[in-house]
This record gives sequence, C-alpha cells and structure tokens, in this order.
Amino acid sequence: MRRTSARLADGREIVYFDLDDFRPDRHVRDPRDLGPVSTASEIRYDAVLDEWVTMASHRQSRTHLPPADECPLCPSKPGRQTEVPAPDYDVAVFENRFPSFATSLDQPVDSQPVSVADEIFARGPGLGRCEVVCYTSDHNAALSQLSPEHVALVVEAWVDRTRELSAVPHVEQVFCFENRGEEIGVTLAHPHGQIYAYPFVTPRTRRMLDSARRHRERTWRNLFADVLAAELADGSRVVTASEHWVAFVPSAARWPIEVHLYPRRQVPDLPALTDGERRDFARIYLQVLRAMDALYDQPLPYISAWHQAPVRIDRDLAYLHLQVFSVRRAANKLKYLAGSESGMGVFINDVTPEQAAGALRAVAPDSEVRR
Amino acid sequence: MRRTSARLADGREIVYFDLDDFRPDRHVRDPRDLGPVSTASEIRYDAVLDEWVTMASHRQSRTHLPPADECPLCPSKPGRQTEVPAPDYDVAVFENRFPSFATSLDQPVDSQPVSVADEIFARGPGLGRCEVVCYTSDHNAALSQLSPEHVALVVEAWVDRTRELSAVPHVEQVFCFENRGEEIGVTLAHPHGQIYAYPFVTPRTRRMLDSARRHRERTWRNLFADVLAAELADGSRVVTASEHWVAFVPSAARWPIEVHLYPRRQVPDLPALTDGERRDFARIYLQVLRAMDALYDQPLPYISAWHQAPVRIDRDLAYLHLQVFSVRRAANKLKYLAGSESGMGVFINDVTPEQAAGALRAVAPDSEVRR
Repeated sequence: MRRTSARLADGREIVYFDLDDFRPDRHVRDPRDLGPVSTASEIRYDAVLDEWVTMASHRQSRTHLPPADECPLCPSKPGRQTEVPAPDYDVAVFENRFPSFATSLDQPVDSQPVSVADEIFARGPGLGRCEVVCYTSDHNAALSQLSPEHVALVVEAWVDRTRELSAVPHVEQVFCFENRGEEIGVTLAHPHGQIYAYPFVTPRTRRMLDSARRHRERTWRNLFADVLAAELADGSRVVTASEHWVAFVPSAARWPIEVHLYPRRQVPDLPALTDGERRDFARIYLQVLRAMDALYDQPLPYISAWHQAPVRIDRDLAYLHLQVFSVRRAANKLKYLAGSESGMGVFINDVTPEQAAGALRAVAPDSEVRR
Repeated sequence: MRRTSARLADGREIVYFDLDDFRPDRHVRDPRDLGPVSTASEIRYDAVLDEWVTMASHRQSRTHLPPADECPLCPSKPGRQTEVPAPDYDVAVFENRFPSFATSLDQPVDSQPVSVADEIFARGPGLGRCEVVCYTSDHNAALSQLSPEHVALVVEAWVDRTRELSAVPHVEQVFCFENRGEEIGVTLAHPHGQIYAYPFVTPRTRRMLDSARRHRERTWRNLFADVLAAELADGSRVVTASEHWVAFVPSAARWPIEVHLYPRRQVPDLPALTDGERRDFARIYLQVLRAMDALYDQPLPYISAWHQAPVRIDRDLAYLHLQVFSVRRAANKLKYLAGSESGMGVFINDVTPEQAAGALRAVAPDSEVRR
C-alpha cells in the first residue's frame, strides 16, 4: 500500500491510497481555478433533547445528481477536470467542498464560549472536517463488486483517516459511513463513502455508552461483548461469521434489513484492528453486501455506519462495530420514518429479525456459519 | 358536539364526532363479512440503545395506495362498504385493522415477564391500541382547508381519545399524529391522522423529561416554559402567536421546516386544555398549516406530532406541545435522513431556523405576531 498526500486548487487536501508501489506518481497539479471553500457551519444545542444540531445553509447549493459524464469523483481526463486531478486512482480521499464541518470557517459564528446561563440557545462554530472517500475510479462499480484486496485498501484508508482526523483540533468523534442509492437521497452515483469528524460525541454514541456504563456498573462486563455472546449462543439471527468477525441481525432491529458486524474482541476503533482482522473484515463485509444485493436481485439502497469510540472519552466502554441497514421492506416498497419513528423515536419494524437473518443466510455466498 | 360509539363487523370500535345534534343517527350496522383482526405485535428491548422497538410483521400486507374509488376511509355507499359504515360523517375514529399495538393479541408472544437476567433479549407482547382519525368525509379535502369549527371538532376527538386510551390497560402514553403526503410514505390519501397508545413511554419523551428533570433540579423552573419565554424574548423565530398559543421554529430545529406550537401555560395533555384554548388552537394551527402550504405553492408533506405527558409518570415535568415538520428543503428537493442522521443521530439542517421562520411569516395569513 502506498499513501500520497497532495493539495487541490483551493487548498483542500487529497490523499491517494494505492494497492502497490507500481502505480504512477500521484503528485498531479490541480489546474482548476477554484474559489476558496465557503463554509458557515454552526452547531446549536437543543436544550429539550440535550443534543447538538448542525446548521449548514451553504450546503443547499451542493451538487445534485449530475449526469455520469460530469461526475466530480471520476478521474480527470484531458479537457475535463474533476475533484480528483489524476488520470486514475485506486482509492482517493479528499476534503468535501460542501462540508458540514470544517477546520476553518468564513465567519466566526457567534463564537462566544458556551455558558450555562444561555444554555437554552447555546451555539458554537461547526468545527471539524468532512471527507469524501472514492472507493474506486470505476464510476459504474460498487463496493460490493470490488475484490477483497481492494476493500482491504478501503479499510486502510478508513484507518488512516480515523488516526489523522482524531488529531484535528476540536474533533471528538470520527464517523466513516456510506450512503448508497437514490432512494436514500444520494446525490452522486459514483461509488463512494464519507467521513465526518464531529466536534462533539454523537447522540447515538452517547446513548450506547450510557447503556454500557450502567451495564458495567451492574455486571462488571462489557455490554457489547455480552450482546455478541448472546447472539452467538442463540444463533437464530447470525447471518455469517468468520475467524475474527460475526455478522448478525440484532434482536431489536429497527430496519427491515439491518446487519451488525462485530469483531470477536473488544477494540475501540478501526486503527486498533490487527492486519488479520482488517483483511478478514473485507471478506465478511463482501459476503454481507452481496447477500443484501441478492435479496431482491437488485442493488439494495443502504446506509453503512462505523461506530467507533470517541476520540477522548469512554474508550474503555466502546466496542467498534459496523451497522448496515436498508429502508427497503419489500421488492417494491420502502420503509419511511413517519410519525412514530420521527416524532416519538419508536420504530415499528414490519420484518422480524429472524425472518431477515434467514433470508440473508439463504442468499449469502459461503454462508457457512462458524460459531 | 355529539359523540356516538358503535362497532364494526369484526368487533372493532368506531366513534363518531358530529358538529351538532341534527346529524342523522350514526348507529348504522356494518354489513361486511370481516374475519377477525389478526395481530401478532411484539415489543423488544434494545439493550444497547435502552429503547423498545416494535415488531409488527402482520403489517406488511396493509392497504397500500388504493385508487380513490376504493378508499377505505370514505363514507359507505350502497354497493360499496368502507371502514366507515355510514353515508356521511364529520369526524370518525376507529381502531386500525392493521395495528402496531392491540388490546388482544393472536398468540401470547413469549409473554413471560421481563427479568433483569435476560435483559439483553427482553421482549413482551405489543399491547396497546392504534386508531385512525378521519378528519372529514371529503376525500379531496385537507385538514388545512377545514373551517376552524371543524378543526376544533378534531381537537375534541383527540381529547376524547386521549382520555379513553389513557385508561386502557398497559397504555403508558397516547400519541396523536398525522402523516401527510406520499413523500413520507402515506399509503392512504384521504385526510386522516392516527393515534398510537403505546405500552411504554417513548424514547423522545423520556429524553425530554430527563432534560426537564435536570433543568428543574438546577433552576426550580420548567424547561419548556423557559424555552417558550426565551423564544418570545428573542422573537426572530416566532411565526405567529395568539391569546393562548405561540408558534415558533425552535433554535436548534432539525428539519428544514419545523414549527412548535406551545400553549402559554403549562398543561400535561390535551384533556387539560380549556375550551378557549382548544378553539384558539384550531385557529392558530390553521394559520400555520396554510403558511406551510403557501411556502412552495403546493401541499407540503408533513408530520404533525402531539407531545403529551405519559399517562402515569412525570406529568408535573411535561408540557403539552405540537411539533409540525416537513422533509421538503426546497420546491423540488427533499431532505433524507442519511448516515449522519440515521446512523449517529446528528441532524444537519440546510435551512437556518431564522430563514424558515421568516419565510413562514411572509406567507402566513393574519401573521401579526403578538407577544
């Protein structure tokens, strides 16, 4: 694996990850005449729900479903410069031109420090960083169609970015994820994921860690390890398992298709995985993604979300895992978040987790389940 | 107002609310040959997120976008029996034939009591009740087009149902809501809302009440009352206000269009409102809904959610309010919940609350703001 860092015309960083050293030099100049990135993100505290919300009004004008011959994530060609100023690449990561969080902001948005007195309207600058991860230069491919070696290169990119972004000032949590499919609002078809480096610990992570803390106080054990052991003992929701990983549908799944991938040992984040665990993940993840695409014989829209420990706190409680889920509830029907889910946080799932796990096992390649 | 209770062919209850006593008798027999309602709902505890999730696999086959001449919510006509066995109605409420929660269940799903020992996979029967609220017999109308008197009748129906459902065994919270628009997955076009009577306090309510408890411990004041006072003092996000109600976009709004309606005094739930407050609500709610439809000169898809106190606990902390929000972020664009929102619970809003409030004020009928 070779890593090359360069700069785009407006100063944003781009990092190339290549499968081997025999690739051409990636230090290609970006000849575009780009204005500076304009970012006015702000975070606001919701005192009623005790959560931060991000305001990013500059994102309203972001690129929306361009035709394939104007894809900004394809390699550049003579006469057509894209966001990637190279004639080819294996994996390329660059700072988002329309970021929700940025290391420097246009206007120092009301950046007085948050005081308890004005906590009802507390707000602060949307500091952090947002990156785009191009999985392959092939516009028509998908992560699920890449080789295990190529997916392992994507994992190395996530590891690298998690390590680097964890060191960026103000960053409290690094989130690697993929949105796939127009059904969930994806605005660029090129196979890619994203990374958000947040200036706070996210609401879901805080809730998970609160549960893990209570569980440890009561039992002295790790909650996630107990969940994994219980799923393995039960077995009815396990989709597939390998030397280092287990893929299961959680007992209380919220989505019609939802798979969690846990490593068999507790680690806080991606950089803590061994080489063997990373390579093994690439294989089992491909099994899961291919089973998901086989379910309805069409590419499944999905969200894939890496749950990593916060950068500074509760790293002993956290347990790295990947959550992959889909809004598709039948070949021709989607699940929508309506009143119960969006208004009250109560999920109604039309598919039982045991049904979902059975359906995925039936179509999973190499689906021998190892306990 | 006249209230009539009757039974449908399969034993489900239907309640008619009529504007005056001069309407025809609503005790019409339902001549349909309906099999018994089949319900196998189950609630499962998510130990990682400390929340209940509902499994309702029998709902997969629910009615999906029928043509207008097969609408099950229209009044019955000779030769065409619907869910409402009457030739006309003002407001009609009946038990959902495809409920997420029910007072009796087909199979006593694993109904051993929840023990701390097996808390990882804790589950229980999906007891409770789900109702459909038909706002008007006019298939092509919308709540926003009804008269203030008719909307006040809908409010009376909510009050009645909240009172009745709060007394149903196992019910811990009553949620009156409306999903409107195919964009958010609505499967029936007839103007209607729903009521869920949950067998637990919902996750959002628990979080709000936790915040309110901490606020009271620190300040001896009510959190929601402080939020309302702060919004009135600031003023930049107030959309409209009346004698008894204030409509504002919250400072940390999650959705491109989101309006909260608070009564000016703290009450736990709809039955606690005075007659004057109910009638005043009908007027201000129509103002808000009509402003929302005027924004893009087209019916706005929305979710409208009543936040009421739980039936038994924390009624002194709760503060009744209505949350109305839309996924529309531009005339031709929707907001999707993607990785950041669905995976991490971090909302990225492309529209600032001040912009949204200003846009609504500009199109609101009678939008004089009273402080």
